[in-house]
Amino acid sequence: MFKRTSGMALSLGSLLAAASLTPALAAPAQPSGQVQVRDHNISMAQVIEAQKAWCAGLLKISQAYASGGIKAATTTAEAVIDQAYAYQNGPVAFKPTLTSGSQTFRATREGALAYFVGNNPRFPNDKGFALKPWRTCRAVNAVIQLNGPSAVTMGNVVITDAKGDTTTVDKTWQFEKESNGTVRILLHHSSLPFQG
Amino acid sequence: MFKRTSGMALSLGSLLAAASLTPALAAPAQPSGQVQVRDHNISMAQVIEAQKAWCAGLLKISQAYASGGIKAATTTAEAVIDQAYAYQNGPVAFKPTLTSGSQTFRATREGALAYFVGNNPRFPNDKGFALKPWRTCRAVNAVIQLNGPSAVTMGNVVITDAKGDTTTVDKTWQFEKESNGTVRILLHHSSLPFQG
Amino acid sequence: MFKRTSGMALSLGSLLAAASLTPALAAPAQPSGQVQVRDHNISMAQVIEAQKAWCAGLLKISQAYASGGIKAATTTAEAVIDQAYAYQNGPVAFKPTLTSGSQTFRATREGALAYFVGNNPRFPNDKGFALKPWRTCRAVNAVIQLNGPSAVTMGNVVITDAKGDTTTVDKTWQFEKESNGTVRILLHHSSLPFQG
Amino acid sequence: MFKRTSGMALSLGSLLAAASLTPALAAPAQPSGQVQVRDHNISMAQVIEAQKAWCAGLLKISQAYASGGIKAATTTAEAVIDQAYAYQNGPVAFKPTLTSGSQTFRATREGALAYFVGNNPRFPNDKGFALKPWRTCRAVNAVIQLNGPSAVTMGNVVITDAKGDTTTVDKTWQFEKESNGTVRILLHHSSLPFQG
Repeated sequence: MFKRTSGMALSLGSLLAAASLTPALAAPAQPSGQVQVRDHNISMAQVIEAQKAWCAGLLKISQAYASGGIKAATTTAEAVIDQAYAYQNGPVAFKPTLTSGSQTFRATREGALAYFVGNNPRFPNDKGFALKPWRTCRAVNAVIQLNGPSAVTMGNVVITDAKGDTTTVDKTWQFEKESNGTVRILLHHSSLPFQG
Repeated sequence: MFKRTSGMALSLGSLLAAASLTPALAAPAQPSGQVQVRDHNISMAQVIEAQKAWCAGLLKISQAYASGGIKAATTTAEAVIDQAYAYQNGPVAFKPTLTSGSQTFRATREGALAYFVGNNPRFPNDKGFALKPWRTCRAVNAVIQLNGPSAVTMGNVVITDAKGDTTTVDKTWQFEKESNGTVRILLHHSSLPFQG
Repeated sequence: MFKRTSGMALSLGSLLAAASLTPALAAPAQPSGQVQVRDHNISMAQVIEAQKAWCAGLLKISQAYASGGIKAATTTAEAVIDQAYAYQNGPVAFKPTLTSGSQTFRATREGALAYFVGNNPRFPNDKGFALKPWRTCRAVNAVIQLNGPSAVTMGNVVITDAKGDTTTVDKTWQFEKESNGTVRILLHHSSLPFQG
Repeated sequence: MFKRTSGMALSLGSLLAAASLTPALAAPAQPSGQVQVRDHNISMAQVIEAQKAWCAGLLKISQAYASGGIKAATTTAEAVIDQAYAYQNGPVAFKPTLTSGSQTFRATREGALAYFVGNNPRFPNDKGFALKPWRTCRAVNAVIQLNGPSAVTMGNVVITDAKGDTTTVDKTWQFEKESNGTVRILLHHSSLPFQG
């Protein structure tokens, strides 16, 4: 993401022209040829991509369960979580849709895994959210905040199951672009819509 | 917050000693006397203070309503929102506890005000959350992420009303320290606990 | 900068399409019509603009001195500094080209002003860098780092005077986008090229 | 750096007390026992430590050259650069003290290595700054800016050689705390003091 590529290298001419008040009078430029640009920011496209990756991960766990049972689902969920969430770097602020009481918040990888695939006696209420026969998943954004190496999205996620039934949740994510360019979730608050 | 104060000025001696491999051999330091420190970060104390300020604001609106009616409550709510939320700088990611449907997300100041004090025909379902006779409010944190000029908290907020009834919500905030040192809310996702 | 404008509002359709795995199956989107986007980042264009503004400010002080003397130059310099540098928010890391000894670093507004227009007995070596008859000024970038609300540039600045003589300096700037969208200098290190 | 440790875990009691307006009335806290804290920020101690590490690296290369010749110095310099500078993640804004002309800026690892140990025909003017018999090195800070995951220092670095001769340079660094907690240099502008 941060590598020197031709896509991120801007021509000296264009930046020089842009920044120069009187380029015609100027002495020859000393730096040779190209401006080296490092862009630490998450782009809008990367935000959307990270949302799609979360949805794709959910469907992947569901499919693994259907085809390979709990063992395959667990292996898949571990890979999905390690890719999508930043537990490697510390506590993640994760409030899943269907958790409550003293186990509402899942700051640890173990707690996240239990939520997705259940079967952990230390999280007895977890039934394995990702084991259901999910078929589609998409994010509909209401607010996006781009803040350099991190970005926030708030809106709905709409998922459908094998019967075509739809579940809509209110969802907030904060994504962080790590030093090597990987985008991971730092914050995830999901809740069922208020029933007034 | 960022001003030069004696509290933020460190003695040259201490930093020189800390950074110096062989201070005894060193030439006299050139900078005169003090290191000028600018700390852009939100401290843990400021995070807790911002949570307390949100709670205090809620109680203040409630009290204004009790003593001065909807007009006093609205004036108070406007001041509370302008102080606590960063609507001045753009859309805030705000999902209040009791909103739903097409009005779930309140990215604008008008939507936030309607939630707190109601009485806005464009938000017909808003009854005015802050008008209730709230008596106490406190945050109980599960996860805190300090990220320099912004910080995330996730946990519960527990509020009690005049009868002593308690309401507990799951709440995520992101606070931002603005350039002049003011700490304001950029993100607020609140939801009723899942009833399994 | 952060305001809701049509330029920053993305159509729901485009983001929905981007984020959706199977949009054809999806239920109607709940958020009404538009995604509210707040972009806290400095864009490349804003970086270049801030460099141009610094150059323009230098020329403006020079011109004020030529036409109005030291009083006009000082008034102009104060306005330029207040607009271009973030002294309002705390110490700026400023190492001008021609300072030395115990007055090398100008963390305060007074020190910056003295450098640009001199005439301050507390900075006896300052001759007023901006009082010279500067005619052109341009930045030539070697490295640019975009880091969200702040950005770094490193390269040369080339200035010419009334005789057509050229001065080239090695210059590093860090710009910060403040909460209200203003871009100001947090860090400025300027030095004469090494004469090997 | 970001791991859950007892040092970063705060007692629930202290934060609850801090954030609570009327703790005596409060219901039992739901999160169990401890707040999980992730601190992404560079602390003042880490800034000073990173400066000391740069100085120690310089002396280490010098010592490797004295005891093992250019091969040992080069191997050492590669390790020092890879640890101290963030070339892994993209262009570093590096203006060494003694470079000039078209090779003033060293945005690449190769350019940094050439500066420290020379012997690269593509950088014919580089004599190997770190090969000199340096004996001591220390930073004297004039300005420090703490900006969360990054921090700026500006001031002098004073180094002495085997004869006791002292070299003082004006130096600006920006350090970045990477996702895994490592602190590396993103920006380094060094220059000889102006000789007025």
